[in-house]
Formats: sequence, C-alpha cells, structure tokens
Amino acid sequence: MKPQAIVLLSGGLDSAVSLWLAKKKGWACSALTFDYGQRHKKELRHAQRLARIAKVPFKVVRFSLPWGGSSLVDKKTRLPRRSLSKISHTTIPSTYVPARNTLFLSFALSWADQKKAQYLVIGANAIDYSGYPDCRPVYIKSFERMANKATRLGTEQKKNIKIVAPLLKLSKADIVRLGLKLGVPINKTWSCYAGGKTPCGTCDSCRLRQKGIREACLPTSCAQL
Amino acid sequence: MKPQAIVLLSGGLDSAVSLWLAKKKGWACSALTFDYGQRHKKELRHAQRLARIAKVPFKVVRFSLPWGGSSLVDKKTRLPRRSLSKISHTTIPSTYVPARNTLFLSFALSWADQKKAQYLVIGANAIDYSGYPDCRPVYIKSFERMANKATRLGTEQKKNIKIVAPLLKLSKADIVRLGLKLGVPINKTWSCYAGGKTPCGTCDSCRLRQKGIREACLPTSCAQL
Repeated sequence: MKPQAIVLLSGGLDSAVSLWLAKKKGWACSALTFDYGQRHKKELRHAQRLARIAKVPFKVVRFSLPWGGSSLVDKKTRLPRRSLSKISHTTIPSTYVPARNTLFLSFALSWADQKKAQYLVIGANAIDYSGYPDCRPVYIKSFERMANKATRLGTEQKKNIKIVAPLLKLSKADIVRLGLKLGVPINKTWSCYAGGKTPCGTCDSCRLRQKGIREACLPTSCAQL
Repeated sequence: MKPQAIVLLSGGLDSAVSLWLAKKKGWACSALTFDYGQRHKKELRHAQRLARIAKVPFKVVRFSLPWGGSSLVDKKTRLPRRSLSKISHTTIPSTYVPARNTLFLSFALSWADQKKAQYLVIGANAIDYSGYPDCRPVYIKSFERMANKATRLGTEQKKNIKIVAPLLKLSKADIVRLGLKLGVPINKTWSCYAGGKTPCGTCDSCRLRQKGIREACLPTSCAQL
C-alpha cells in the first residue's frame, strides 16, 4: 500500500508545487483547505480546482477566529504595500494570522490520525517569505516532535509522523522552476492576498511571486504565468 | 497589569477547577469553549454559565471535523460502557477525538498571541483519565516548546509562553477536594459524554467523576454534587 499524506492546499503556488511533489514521491495524497474568514474565498475555488486536476480527495475545514488579529481576516484593516526590500525576516507584518500554521497543521494532524497518514505536507518557505515565525525550520521540527506525542498514530500505532516542508529552503525562483518541471498548472494557482478579479500586484505575496517568476524564467516557459 | 491567561473551559469539572485556580493566582482569565460537532451542546451552556459565575470573558470557537473518527462526534457509533477497572492507560478508547487537545490548545494559542496572554490553562489529567495520548505530561511539554517557536508572542515579543496543566498529576478525588476548597460550583459542571437530562452514569467520564466524588467527600460536603 502507498504511504499516505495529508497536503495543505491553499490554492497558491507553494502548496500546489508541494502537492505535485508529494504525488511524484508516490504518496497517496489527500488535500486539505481552510475556510477561516479570510478576506476572500477565491483561493478556496483555486484549491478545489487544483485538487481536481491532481486527482486527489479534497476536504474543506471551516473555523472561526473570533479574535481576528490580522489584516488577512479583518477587512477593515488595509493590507500592507511594501517594496521587496522592505519584506524582512525580522519584523512580522500585519498579514500574520496568529498561530495559523499551527492551526492548519493541527487539523491536518487530526485527519492524519484518523486515516493513518504518516506524512503531513506544508508549502512553508523560509527564504522568500513574509517573516512569519511559523514558516521557520525550527518551528516545523518542534511541531513534528509534538505531533508524535499527541496522537494515537504516533503513540499506540508507533508510526513516525513526518512534517514534510519540501520548499523550506528554496527561493521563490527555485519553486517556480520546480513547478514548471513537475508540470504544475501554475496559471491555475492564486497567490494574491486581495480577492480582486486579477492579482493586485502590490501585496507581499504578489511581489514575492513576481520576483520568483522574473528570476526563474525564460520568456517562453513563463508566458502563461 | 495582571498576567493574562486563556483557559480552556469545556463545562466539565476539571476545566472549571482549573479556571478557579487560575483566577486564584491573580491572572486575568479569558475562557474559551469549542463547538465542534460534539454529541450534545449541553456542555456549551454549562461552560457559558460557569464563565458568567467566574466573571470572565468567554468566547466560543466553531469548527468542523469532516473526518469524524470518534464516538464523541459521531452519533451513529455507541459510547463505550466500561467498568472503572477496564479504563486503562494503554488502550485509547473510541471517545478519543483525533488531535483534539492539539486543536484546542492551538486555538487558545492563537487568541493568546493576539492578546499577549502568556498562560494557556488546560484541565488535562494524567491519573484518572481515559487513556488519551494528549493528556500526558510529555505531550503538554512538547506543545509548550512548539508554542514558543510558533508565535509572534514567543519570538518577536520574547514572552515565555507556558502551558499550565494544574491537574495533570492529581487524582479525581484530589480535583474534587480542590474544587470544594476553591468554591467551584461543582453542581453547575457537566462531565457526561451523553447529553441526556441527567448524567448517564455509565460513560467513562461519569464513572471517573463518581469515583472522585466518592473518594473525596464527607457526605455533608458533597450533598449537592
């Protein structure tokens, strides 16, 4: 039987590349997306479409965050508009959602515990990222340790649960290159924090994506991105 | 300013005693309860009432667990009825909800990160408990380590986040005694896994509670429990 994996799929570039990579490893993947009151639902539709293209089962978890605390869930606050040089790893921006990756991975862990999936795949990246603490290798490792103590799978069933973050140490350009190589439909992914008809081009996520595509591409290979 | 604490409040005995204890320490407490499709909503009403009596702010987080995996959320499966001697620490029963305490603590961590609360209080107990892996000291400690890596509070703001599990090594009888001493309205708590008009008396939770009350009490002090 194939090893099983739960893949966090946001609808963005990084999680899509992670899903294609997990499939390439021969794992039986299930995709998990979250509806938690984010600014727009557009990424949910993209996630669902990507799961369909990848031919993997797909679930949406709904949860509320009554305390807000992030410009990504609170429409009254404005998204920051920073130039690339201002996106630092020492200041956490207003788009940070308190403990978001911990919540996402905890739900993935719950599903993994129920279906005996040993791998949890997350597209976190610690190079071209917005400075979130829960995108760092040290965080991923500590979640993994906790996961093995927390669950039936890690204790009674003695499986060694692994948090797989294959993009952790790649640049955005590397991720784009990898996506192209794996045949990820990058033009079907959505990275923009805003939910307009077309990407805003000015949020951190758009800027990092543009940088990656710019640095990675021959004009011909990226015509559709 | 008083130190702040987020207290997980299920409406049961253990979490109520934990809340009263945290208040006694002089912490500014906020109570957090979950509506996650459990068999009955009765415990939510008890939690709300207890928060009102304790005069602490109270929030309910709603989330879905589309994969089920527990007789505590799946009404089609029957709750186990075991004698006390069969409640062991080596077999995980069907009432185990995959990664539940990790989910609960992750939401508490998110709120704590937003409001800069250093303490997360959980009524987990590793003596008279149902054998859940996420009630053990080794789990609590590993969650704490992860929490400090995961958040703005633990990194940028350099606060040492503490997971406080004050009942971890107490017997159920000790918890009842402590509750009586602290003036916890034990008769307003609800422990039963089923949601009948009165407690079923046969689920693990009822049996452990009865045992605690039996062992702890003078008939006069427990007349109302």
